[in-house]
Amino acid sequence: SVDACIEEWETLSNEYRALEKIHKEYRQKLEELTQLQQKCIKGIAHQRYRITVIKRSLKKLDHRDDPDNNERNELLQTDLIRRKAQLYDMENNIPKQSGLYLKIILGNINVSILNKDEKYRYKDEYEKFKLVINLVAFAISTFNILTNIRTADLVHMFLLVWYYCTLTIRESILKVNGSRIKGWWRAHHFISTVLSGILLIWPNGETYYAFRKQFMFFNMYISFVQYLLFMYQRGCLYRLKALGERHNMDITVEGFHHWMWRGLGFIIPFLLIGYIWELYNAYTLYLLSFSDNAEWHVSTLAILFFLLFLGNTLTTLSVIPQKLKE
Amino acid sequence: SVDACIEEWETLSNEYRALEKIHKEYRQKLEELTQLQQKCIKGIAHQRYRITVIKRSLKKLDHRDDPDNNERNELLQTDLIRRKAQLYDMENNIPKQSGLYLKIILGNINVSILNKDEKYRYKDEYEKFKLVINLVAFAISTFNILTNIRTADLVHMFLLVWYYCTLTIRESILKVNGSRIKGWWRAHHFISTVLSGILLIWPNGETYYAFRKQFMFFNMYISFVQYLLFMYQRGCLYRLKALGERHNMDITVEGFHHWMWRGLGFIIPFLLIGYIWELYNAYTLYLLSFSDNAEWHVSTLAILFFLLFLGNTLTTLSVIPQKLKE
Ligand SMILES: CC(C)(COP(=O)(O)OP(=O)(O)OC[C@H]1O[C@@H](n2cnc3c(N)ncnc32)[C@H](O)[C@@H]1OP(=O)(O)O)[C@@H](O)C(=O)NCCC(=O)NCCS
Ligand SMILES: CC(C)(COP(=O)(O)OP(=O)(O)OC[C@H]1O[C@@H](n2cnc3c(N)ncnc32)[C@H](O)[C@@H]1OP(=O)(O)O)[C@@H](O)C(=O)NCCC(=O)NCCS
Repeated sequence: SVDACIEEWETLSNEYRALEKIHKEYRQKLEELTQLQQKCIKGIAHQRYRITVIKRSLKKLDHRDDPDNNERNELLQTDLIRRKAQLYDMENNIPKQSGLYLKIILGNINVSILNKDEKYRYKDEYEKFKLVINLVAFAISTFNILTNIRTADLVHMFLLVWYYCTLTIRESILKVNGSRIKGWWRAHHFISTVLSGILLIWPNGETYYAFRKQFMFFNMYISFVQYLLFMYQRGCLYRLKALGERHNMDITVEGFHHWMWRGLGFIIPFLLIGYIWELYNAYTLYLLSFSDNAEWHVSTLAILFFLLFLGNTLTTLSVIPQKLKE
Repeated sequence: SVDACIEEWETLSNEYRALEKIHKEYRQKLEELTQLQQKCIKGIAHQRYRITVIKRSLKKLDHRDDPDNNERNELLQTDLIRRKAQLYDMENNIPKQSGLYLKIILGNINVSILNKDEKYRYKDEYEKFKLVINLVAFAISTFNILTNIRTADLVHMFLLVWYYCTLTIRESILKVNGSRIKGWWRAHHFISTVLSGILLIWPNGETYYAFRKQFMFFNMYISFVQYLLFMYQRGCLYRLKALGERHNMDITVEGFHHWMWRGLGFIIPFLLIGYIWELYNAYTLYLLSFSDNAEWHVSTLAILFFLLFLGNTLTTLSVIPQKLKE
């Protein structure tokens, strides 16, 4: 009857009043949080500024003649470095501004992840995303080698444009959240977006068909390398996560380094073969660009492939001495 | 001297300890906030569920014979509606899950804006973004009408693909943040992305040149209409914002409605001309698709333009009776 419903409603309303109270408390906490956040941001900026000032005045001094001063100077230097690391740690829980690229694409939205576990989860998801798309790309490449359907080729290029474009966005988000991904890899994905875009609008003339098969095989190979990289990056991520959890004793820093070097040693030869293949693509396209009916796409693609070869090789080779120093 | 530096360092360290305390408090508040958030989300879901249960049992009852019951039933109904509005309001300060599209592009990141002013600012920025790109598109279209450079055409199409793609992302973010933007307009921008993509890969043969000029003029017209829409949407936004601020007495609901109808009355004829132009584009392409060397692009574009015409006309015309009912 209606009475029963009204009774139900009364109890629900009581619960609602409790919820309202919680919500009010929540809103209040949210405001307090925003204020504390502002204070932290200001405090960190202030510390940074003062540290550079102290560093500058230390540099101006000449302490080599006085061993006592020299020692105190060095102690101070390590203190400064430690403080910087502490400030960096603090910033992990504080929302950061997006870069220009994200601001243009997404507008001024806050993409910071304030929770460590969620950061790991986000990175893990990013790696999985790459893997899935690469498996799809592998399937399409194989299909395209066996057949010759223009639409399938176009679908492939469309997928690549979309994929690299999405990667640049996700990597910018990772960057905001403190990833140390190198500038080149992000540039790499911008260049790859442009490259795929040019492949997409390259008319299917003679030169296109002269390059097509080589490009499809190249894609299959890259997908395979991406699979290896996925296994490596995922392993790193899980081990780093385990290292970050203090009560987790399964892994040591030495164990991590050992594993990492073994993984790198396995992967780097495959990477170098990939880079040489990029150089070979550039060379093939360079030769094709002299043929009579070569479009402007051919020489542009040659330059882009050469750029990729150069940047990839230099960056990957520079990673090794850098990691040795750590 | 080093001593002076060390002294500086000591005072800075004291400040750091204060900052550390604030940061600790901040982290604690952040955790508390997350817990309160979870409670609110659960509470709101519970309320929603119980409301539907009550509604269902009310429906089953037949109260027409008893006027007293009938009255109580109606009171309860309005109570239920009011409660729903209150719950909706509550959700404004609580982060919401992204939809599937955003999850694929951005990954599982939280794009909610919890602050009302920032929500307005985000929408305002979105409108400005559209305006700027439309001015650029207008300039490029004009340039393309006066010249005939294939690369400039391609730049134009590239811009359109990128622009519509970005719009779909930003609109999904707006949607998460409670915008009532209709599904069609988001679908419209998906379709436009595909349409621009096909224009991009359409080889520059005879049929392309037969359509090119008409398309450029169409683009100029659309940019002009977008300018009008910008003025209208911005006016709505500012007035809605003023209405939302309780202490702001410059505007009344009636004043807002009056202004809105005047704006709509001015804009709708221009919109309808635009839609008829879309139909005309579809017709031109349809005729071209019968010519001997018509690519598959021609008929596909004809279908897409027709789709846009249909959806736009139906949606815009349906807005009027809907607004009258309000
Ligand atoms: C050589 C390589 C395996 C070393 O990886 P690494 O041990 O993670 O290197 P770093 O320590 O410099 O990594 C720093 C950060 O950048 C990320 N990163 C490194 N290379 C990356 C890449 N190519 N794409 C995306 N992220 C990358 C790492 O995951 C790490 O992230 P984190 O700070 O969030 O933990 C890596 O640079 C790589 O993948 N290179 C090959 C990429 C390539 O050539 N692709 C094209 C296929 S031929
Ligand atoms: C007819 C029209 C002007 C009515 O606008 P309106 O008064 O804002 O309509 P509604 O009240 O239904 O709007 C609801 C929400 O959707 C948004 N919205 C409406 N049309 C939109 C559009 N085309 N693009 C993006 N957002 C739109 C509004 O800003 C509003 O957002 P809010 O909830 O954050 O405040 C609008 O629908 C419109 O712009 N239509 C034409 C679009 C078009 O045809 N473009 C192609 C050019 S020919």
